[in-house]
Amino acid sequence: MQMPAPDARIMERRAQVASRLRAVLSPGAVIDDPVATRAYECDALTAYKCPPLAVVLPSSTQEVAAALRVCHEEGVPVVPRGSGTSLAGGALPTADSVVLGVARLNRVLETSPEDRFIRVEAGRTNLSVTGAVEGLGFFYAPDPSSQLACAIAGNVAMNSGGAHCLKYGVTTNNLLGVTLVTMEGEVLEIGGAHMDPAGLDLLGAICGSEGQLGVVTEATLRILPKPEGAMPVLVGFDDPVTAGACVSGIIEAGVLPVAIEFMDRPCIRATEAFAGAGYPDCEALLIVEVEGSEGEIEEQLGAIEAVARRHDPVELRRAKTPEEAAAIWLGRKSAFGAMGQLGDYMCLDGTIPVSELPRVLGRIEALSREYGLEVANVFHAGDGNMHPLILFDANADGQLERCEALGAEILRLCVEVGGCLTGEHGVGVEKRDLMGVQFGEGDLEMQMRVKDVFDPGWLLNPAKVFPLGASEGRRA
Amino acid sequence: MQMPAPDARIMERRAQVASRLRAVLSPGAVIDDPVATRAYECDALTAYKCPPLAVVLPSSTQEVAAALRVCHEEGVPVVPRGSGTSLAGGALPTADSVVLGVARLNRVLETSPEDRFIRVEAGRTNLSVTGAVEGLGFFYAPDPSSQLACAIAGNVAMNSGGAHCLKYGVTTNNLLGVTLVTMEGEVLEIGGAHMDPAGLDLLGAICGSEGQLGVVTEATLRILPKPEGAMPVLVGFDDPVTAGACVSGIIEAGVLPVAIEFMDRPCIRATEAFAGAGYPDCEALLIVEVEGSEGEIEEQLGAIEAVARRHDPVELRRAKTPEEAAAIWLGRKSAFGAMGQLGDYMCLDGTIPVSELPRVLGRIEALSREYGLEVANVFHAGDGNMHPLILFDANADGQLERCEALGAEILRLCVEVGGCLTGEHGVGVEKRDLMGVQFGEGDLEMQMRVKDVFDPGWLLNPAKVFPLGASEGRRA
Repeated sequence: MQMPAPDARIMERRAQVASRLRAVLSPGAVIDDPVATRAYECDALTAYKCPPLAVVLPSSTQEVAAALRVCHEEGVPVVPRGSGTSLAGGALPTADSVVLGVARLNRVLETSPEDRFIRVEAGRTNLSVTGAVEGLGFFYAPDPSSQLACAIAGNVAMNSGGAHCLKYGVTTNNLLGVTLVTMEGEVLEIGGAHMDPAGLDLLGAICGSEGQLGVVTEATLRILPKPEGAMPVLVGFDDPVTAGACVSGIIEAGVLPVAIEFMDRPCIRATEAFAGAGYPDCEALLIVEVEGSEGEIEEQLGAIEAVARRHDPVELRRAKTPEEAAAIWLGRKSAFGAMGQLGDYMCLDGTIPVSELPRVLGRIEALSREYGLEVANVFHAGDGNMHPLILFDANADGQLERCEALGAEILRLCVEVGGCLTGEHGVGVEKRDLMGVQFGEGDLEMQMRVKDVFDPGWLLNPAKVFPLGASEGRRA
Repeated sequence: MQMPAPDARIMERRAQVASRLRAVLSPGAVIDDPVATRAYECDALTAYKCPPLAVVLPSSTQEVAAALRVCHEEGVPVVPRGSGTSLAGGALPTADSVVLGVARLNRVLETSPEDRFIRVEAGRTNLSVTGAVEGLGFFYAPDPSSQLACAIAGNVAMNSGGAHCLKYGVTTNNLLGVTLVTMEGEVLEIGGAHMDPAGLDLLGAICGSEGQLGVVTEATLRILPKPEGAMPVLVGFDDPVTAGACVSGIIEAGVLPVAIEFMDRPCIRATEAFAGAGYPDCEALLIVEVEGSEGEIEEQLGAIEAVARRHDPVELRRAKTPEEAAAIWLGRKSAFGAMGQLGDYMCLDGTIPVSELPRVLGRIEALSREYGLEVANVFHAGDGNMHPLILFDANADGQLERCEALGAEILRLCVEVGGCLTGEHGVGVEKRDLMGVQFGEGDLEMQMRVKDVFDPGWLLNPAKVFPLGASEGRRA
């Protein structure tokens, strides 16, 4: 008797799993047509692609639990997916996995301005959470660049940040509770609208766990009253290291702006060519925005300008009208688009202590020369979350490899100065093999033992976060 | 042959364990004299007492690891202890346990105003952390009432709060990283001074874990710039429910005071008799304090007064000088002392959504009548952390039992309205058997499985946090 061909075996497996999933889900919730599943073959890290065995799109926590129970019984890995905007390959399928998309779980379940929270299903997009409460005078603070598209499920999985996070914190600081479904299909309620959970507080471990512990189907989120107004100031410098020192100075002075955004010359140039924002021709600039009443804005901008003047700025331009404010932000908001015009780039995401900014910027410049690849810097400077963009030509022989090597070197530098491999994009597949740079063996072992508790078979979001050898060893 | 008497067996065990501990610790670090160990027989919940087998007072993380390795090999339970100020019996020994006190670990390891953190050994007292940075213009925000005595180790274990936590968050919001020693003596580094850890974020689970996961020997803490000034306003009402509604109104208006403290009539009366603070004779009062520059204080107090006026206050008194501010705070700060003059009391610690304050205050009043025991309320109202004080006579037959039953009923009420069994005191031994009110079996099981990971033998801080039956079953 002949063994069936690999394709036939996959088809058989697919048919078996899909049929069991169809039996427990609403009509139209299971996609197993190989053409249709191609839509789920990658996320925003498009360099890596792999169509999954099948895709399920459940409409309720109960359906998520039912789908997970089937996959658990069948021993099929499950890749949870929000909107697929991960820049680190957090939702990249494996060929033997079922993608579990939560996009249909998008309802608002409860809104309480008195207690300042909203409870939503986790497939709801980030911006539409604010949309649901802005009529009441509130907003949801974390604002990743992808906020129009990205889902709360992905925000929780990656502990997402954004420009406003300097003042308001990242997702973990604005998340009060979740409904989590384990791989075995058990529904857990963790945290809630009240202060301080009793017993072990597992919410922090779930936030940022990149789908390793369970599937988040509902989230209780902190909402905040909208500030009366906001106004930015633009400060230009004749060298990036001084700009970095000015950021430290602002933080040290005790002002808490909503955002401190940093752009260096390569980025300013590209942006000017692309968007014509009228930025000064200088080595680095900061955009510092504050919020509050007119009086509060006046006071904070005054304090920021006083710090800036001590660092010999070549430009100091305070917006006085909403139009002037929009002009200041125009360049920053076009920066990634502008960089894309220049060619291929790789966007890194490391964090460092703010006081290390000047030193790290200097080291990145030196590394850039050493590797012969230009690096542009545009990032959230106030909380030390850097996004160096390495420019390269994907068609030139060896450039991608050189770019990857330079990227790893920069991330090692972040860890070396007391920072972290990833600020808001997550580890995903992209940085799994750099985890050993950040963590000792004992630290990683403890993290993996916690994963063991939630997902003993290592079926959830396989081959991510942990070094590949370690996670494959664990699964076997 | 005769079995040795129980006392002889304990003495033998004590001698064996103490001798092994002495071999790995500095001279004077092991206390096994039964008279001397009596100093460690209880914490601030003095109703429960039990002298331990022995006490160790290590002077470094390495000594903590060495002591834990010995206890692990000997199968001796370990009770970690900060300063012993727990109100929930969090540091209560068992007769077969070694108390591991971290009081000698009290050094400042690193101070960084630029990056706004301080790294200290965990035995350092809360107030002396602020002491180490106030010369630089900074402070450490969480401020439990016991801050003069309590250790950072205990603050981390209980996720401690305080009056300032409405604005600045509780310990978990101000903790950046810890050094944790597991029961097996392994030293783990979790979190750090940078933003957003990669991989699983275990810091949140450790904060508030009440010594169940490991012994925290070092902590990296967020420090904040000292505000320019602070000023309170006192608002009196002719019923407590309206006072509760005013608290919701202030929060909903988007003002963020540093503190909103609440006192009801029984508490006001006792305080006036004790301290003569000049409070109005009314049913409830709020002390609302704001911080910032003169202009910011003016603006915030104006907004608070506008909300207060809509709730028909019988008194509205804004402090204009530091002396007037001190007079307003005098009564609140004397409140617990004043209540102690009235007789015995039990202090509860539940949290509720702020919008439920009016309803919960009404229900507590009804329960107080039903049980025939007076309840006084004095608490941090802004974040819904209630501290009802049940007054009783410990010498009157059955009163303690009635008091305990009423306390449990009030905590059940907190959970019922969407709140939590404990705000800042922890579960300890006091509330372990109420955990089932808060959590489903699956939720508790998942918490216990995480405990399994860190402490497979269930030797750390035994018989606490989890329902007694469950934790004893686990240990066996």
